[in-house]
Amino acid sequence: MIKVGIVGGTGYTGVELLRLLARHPQVELKAITSRKEAGMPVADMFPNLRRRVTLAFSTPEEAGLETCDVVFFATPNGVAMQQTRALLDAGVRVIDLAADFRIQDIAVWEHWYKMKHACPDLVAEAVYGLPEINRERIKGARLIANPGCYPTSVQLGFLPLLASGAVDAGFLVADVKSGVSGAGRKPETHTLFAEAADNFKAYAVGGHRHWPEIKQGLDSFSGKPVGFTFVPHLIPLIRGIHATLYARLNADIDLQALYEKHYADEAFVDVMPAGAHPETRSVRGANVCRIAVHRPQGGDTVVVLSVIDNLVKGAAGQAVQNMNILFGLPEDTALTDVGMLP
Amino acid sequence: MIKVGIVGGTGYTGVELLRLLARHPQVELKAITSRKEAGMPVADMFPNLRRRVTLAFSTPEEAGLETCDVVFFATPNGVAMQQTRALLDAGVRVIDLAADFRIQDIAVWEHWYKMKHACPDLVAEAVYGLPEINRERIKGARLIANPGCYPTSVQLGFLPLLASGAVDAGFLVADVKSGVSGAGRKPETHTLFAEAADNFKAYAVGGHRHWPEIKQGLDSFSGKPVGFTFVPHLIPLIRGIHATLYARLNADIDLQALYEKHYADEAFVDVMPAGAHPETRSVRGANVCRIAVHRPQGGDTVVVLSVIDNLVKGAAGQAVQNMNILFGLPEDTALTDVGMLP
Amino acid sequence: MIKVGIVGGTGYTGVELLRLLARHPQVELKAITSRKEAGMPVADMFPNLRRRVTLAFSTPEEAGLETCDVVFFATPNGVAMQQTRALLDAGVRVIDLAADFRIQDIAVWEHWYKMKHACPDLVAEAVYGLPEINRERIKGARLIANPGCYPTSVQLGFLPLLASGAVDAGFLVADVKSGVSGAGRKPETHTLFAEAADNFKAYAVGGHRHWPEIKQGLDSFSGKPVGFTFVPHLIPLIRGIHATLYARLNADIDLQALYEKHYADEAFVDVMPAGAHPETRSVRGANVCRIAVHRPQGGDTVVVLSVIDNLVKGAAGQAVQNMNILFGLPEDTALTDVGMLP
Amino acid sequence: MIKVGIVGGTGYTGVELLRLLARHPQVELKAITSRKEAGMPVADMFPNLRRRVTLAFSTPEEAGLETCDVVFFATPNGVAMQQTRALLDAGVRVIDLAADFRIQDIAVWEHWYKMKHACPDLVAEAVYGLPEINRERIKGARLIANPGCYPTSVQLGFLPLLASGAVDAGFLVADVKSGVSGAGRKPETHTLFAEAADNFKAYAVGGHRHWPEIKQGLDSFSGKPVGFTFVPHLIPLIRGIHATLYARLNADIDLQALYEKHYADEAFVDVMPAGAHPETRSVRGANVCRIAVHRPQGGDTVVVLSVIDNLVKGAAGQAVQNMNILFGLPEDTALTDVGMLP
Repeated sequence: MIKVGIVGGTGYTGVELLRLLARHPQVELKAITSRKEAGMPVADMFPNLRRRVTLAFSTPEEAGLETCDVVFFATPNGVAMQQTRALLDAGVRVIDLAADFRIQDIAVWEHWYKMKHACPDLVAEAVYGLPEINRERIKGARLIANPGCYPTSVQLGFLPLLASGAVDAGFLVADVKSGVSGAGRKPETHTLFAEAADNFKAYAVGGHRHWPEIKQGLDSFSGKPVGFTFVPHLIPLIRGIHATLYARLNADIDLQALYEKHYADEAFVDVMPAGAHPETRSVRGANVCRIAVHRPQGGDTVVVLSVIDNLVKGAAGQAVQNMNILFGLPEDTALTDVGMLP
Repeated sequence: MIKVGIVGGTGYTGVELLRLLARHPQVELKAITSRKEAGMPVADMFPNLRRRVTLAFSTPEEAGLETCDVVFFATPNGVAMQQTRALLDAGVRVIDLAADFRIQDIAVWEHWYKMKHACPDLVAEAVYGLPEINRERIKGARLIANPGCYPTSVQLGFLPLLASGAVDAGFLVADVKSGVSGAGRKPETHTLFAEAADNFKAYAVGGHRHWPEIKQGLDSFSGKPVGFTFVPHLIPLIRGIHATLYARLNADIDLQALYEKHYADEAFVDVMPAGAHPETRSVRGANVCRIAVHRPQGGDTVVVLSVIDNLVKGAAGQAVQNMNILFGLPEDTALTDVGMLP
Repeated sequence: MIKVGIVGGTGYTGVELLRLLARHPQVELKAITSRKEAGMPVADMFPNLRRRVTLAFSTPEEAGLETCDVVFFATPNGVAMQQTRALLDAGVRVIDLAADFRIQDIAVWEHWYKMKHACPDLVAEAVYGLPEINRERIKGARLIANPGCYPTSVQLGFLPLLASGAVDAGFLVADVKSGVSGAGRKPETHTLFAEAADNFKAYAVGGHRHWPEIKQGLDSFSGKPVGFTFVPHLIPLIRGIHATLYARLNADIDLQALYEKHYADEAFVDVMPAGAHPETRSVRGANVCRIAVHRPQGGDTVVVLSVIDNLVKGAAGQAVQNMNILFGLPEDTALTDVGMLP
Repeated sequence: MIKVGIVGGTGYTGVELLRLLARHPQVELKAITSRKEAGMPVADMFPNLRRRVTLAFSTPEEAGLETCDVVFFATPNGVAMQQTRALLDAGVRVIDLAADFRIQDIAVWEHWYKMKHACPDLVAEAVYGLPEINRERIKGARLIANPGCYPTSVQLGFLPLLASGAVDAGFLVADVKSGVSGAGRKPETHTLFAEAADNFKAYAVGGHRHWPEIKQGLDSFSGKPVGFTFVPHLIPLIRGIHATLYARLNADIDLQALYEKHYADEAFVDVMPAGAHPETRSVRGANVCRIAVHRPQGGDTVVVLSVIDNLVKGAAGQAVQNMNILFGLPEDTALTDVGMLP
């Protein structure tokens, strides 16, 4: 059994990790920390876990994280980088669901996250945990930077296109829409029901922290710096990201074949038939990225549609997928939930 | 392996059966019928099932239902009663998710469902598939009448109270609210998004078909005819039923202890602590009825709160639970999903 | 022109007052206060008001409220009672949308609101601003206690029944459901979109502050203390309250005629035809209480359905209605919005 | 008083016309037709109109449309073109809210709408009713083609850019999202609540009927054929369109000044400050197009955000605006509703 600890279990990625791990046959949940809620049974806060998770929140001091095999950080940005070295030194693998280890260029990271990085050397060691591009490196990793939700949907959507060189990498557009759970469980005015329901808006058009993370990936797929515009929007739904990606073709290729071939061996990327329109609900609760590729009216614009559940393939599910790879388990262990439709 | 057939797989209870059965380790899906969609892969209609269910819809004639071990009817009312006898004669067990076999009094059934019953003798044989009251009878049954969604939530909520005799059975009120999926997948104006979203209303206050089904149960729990008012409402959410039940106490008993004791051995009924308020989302996708009991300000009114997912414990999940009991499997096989929160 | 001031304009009742008053032909908006946002144009916070309201928030000190003809308090409970006397002394009429002056029994108020009342004498003077019962007293009032949202829907629903004496006043049940805007604009976890959407729950079954307010009214309609159970629920919609009221008949009367006659002269109470089911969306944005009365299956239980927009007839609209009465204007001035459907 | 008739009043644009016209001081509603519902009071179908609209649906034969001053067609495509000539001959002005007269190139229209046009000569006469580009021509028109909802938001968003020549007109992208009411009130599976709620998807990426309508406008603004990609999406909200527009700058201009100057005199187009993000709810129920323009990170991509209420500025409100212009009334008569927020 893999002994698992979770740091910061009161947010949505925390409860989602618990939902998935509670049925993982190889996992023993050892500790989940929350200084503020220490002592409270997790199922008192998240009643869906009643009878399934008996753990109570504990303080970091009592949690015994250094005796775990793996620790997930489901914390705000800036927490994992303070605690990771001690855990690694104790022989614990670390999977960070926040952004601390995602961006290799420390200056860029510090610019966007507005803090000084505590351990640049560990960033250099960290493996970016997108299995579809880094599976082999994940196998041996001590430290995994679990990708952001927007970056997962956008990178998986653009990857075959950029790898093929068939588009103008100088003008890529990602118009991406996210459910409200992506904003977390911390109370804020703009994510109140009465603000976000029956409403739709773009936000952070001037600059969003996921932009440099995505750009880092696209640059690497393309082999050179890309021109990339990213506009996030807030949808009045709980879970789900829909990325609509635009690029200009510079070669006449069979896009459907390109995508099908690229992802032929991937269990968690589903390329839909030509002409299809993936729906976010088809992946609700499931660790799947579902993709369709279009070329409207046979013109020179390619449109890629890519959907994920931001809490699963965009966070906790991908983290469990990384854990499965790390420990040599079948990659889909505990990740076989079918999307909940309706 | 249990060979399973499903009649009428294009509605919400059909796709939910598939979502659950696709991961049932003892089930082999043999056929799913839809005359209208014959030939279409199920996953083309319900893309959440892509890569998980490879079956296509077939006509009833081609389906070979008589070679199955069990057939689920996920059909409109009045269909199962036409086909059940032939299946039973062929040795097939039948679980009807519609209302054909739920009401023992044929005249009452014909009054509310406005058709002549095709096989009153089979109604007499059918077992009402609420495991919490009929588990032993289900084990040996050939034909199971799977309860309605409202009836499941209301009967499980009132059962301990009425069995204890602690309330005035002459004035019971069930104010019940259901998500829109309860109305089915057939397009109708009043269940359109633009009609049902951001809206709330009662309906069928003058009389709803689930009233006689619930009354039949309550009469039986009480040992005499009850006075029972039932008001259903439509909530702007997809899945979930919340029953708020009112009765007048005629004895001073420990309500919390009554409920906890009554359901102590039930895996799928969760009595919450005193003072709790169950949320529909805590059972979203899960085969659980979650109950709390209140006595506001210590007065003589008892208020019971009971929530289920109408498509799971209120339909497909309960049907799978009945199948597990029928075939001697652990009752929770394929029914361990944790409620999806958020 | 009536010079109007608003204290506390950053919440939902504040912005709703502005939406309505911006088109009131006899109103001149003089000031809207918010210590925290002083200096910010109101339309920066609420962009629906761009080009329609040019006012900026001001501090209470700068607002010049004592020069207004009327001041609305759209503040948390406990604020108005601190400032009302000075305004009244300056000749300003006061309409409090919070609860400070709603309950005549000071001890009851202090028990439920958990603070000491600052001016019991003004409570005695205050008129409860439900025009359908107090229109004449409102005309001459200096101080109006604008009713709560739940209390408006429940009292208007029960009034004809209790006034007629046709029901057992010892066992009244109000099962009431409210949209999330009723909880206000202050960020809290349970009103986040990802918590409240696709979810339904009861809350405060053990006791809600609107219970004593409603009971005070029902006692008065009935002429004696009633037995009254109140269970509020949270609906995943923005605006709207649906009250489902239950009582036991003790006389055989024509309920439809009773209600139609009672409200025949009321512009803002609409009794629907027999058999109807009012929808919250039919009053979305409108200052209307829409009511239907049922007697299921001709039994001895009466079911009343009553809907309002909690921000309009349940708050800001009713406050403007009270202002119109106070100043001798046509009661529907600025209150002619048609419910926004869909 | 202007005598008004409405053909086809059972859909969402019909009831929205009634909501607006019911309070228009210069309008006398003469007739609203529905062959299917003839005889039913309009307020029985749309209870928000109770006490405000006393009209009943009538058959087209009984309606006396030829005695009206203006007739609105709120009908499916292909109806208005059959009846318009007779009305024009009788001296009646016609405003068609459907697509019959929107596209000047008959072959293009027939290709996209898959029917033969009944009166190409009237198409040539018809004025495209976007007041912000055609106000003067609307004044004298007999026949107005009211623009589509998507086309209104996209054209108003692109207009200043294309008129200025500052962008590459060969690669314009409109990623547009619409609430579900845009699909109409006809029951269809994909617009059911349980299908469209908590879900997001693109649709018709291969080709949508509003593409040629928008392209006709953009070509005209640009003075030459543009390259234009249009991807519509369905948002789980009732009312609202959010267009996110992308273009590549070929000149270094002050975008904010460009937009503010272009729309300085327009009452119904609101250019927000630099950096703003318009929300659909800020125009809910209001006849306003709210626009913001961005240049992310100072690069060569311009992003325009444009929101409308699809039923108001995108349909019925714009139709009333056109009627006001036609009859020489103040353009905002009956169009002063403030957006309903929250």
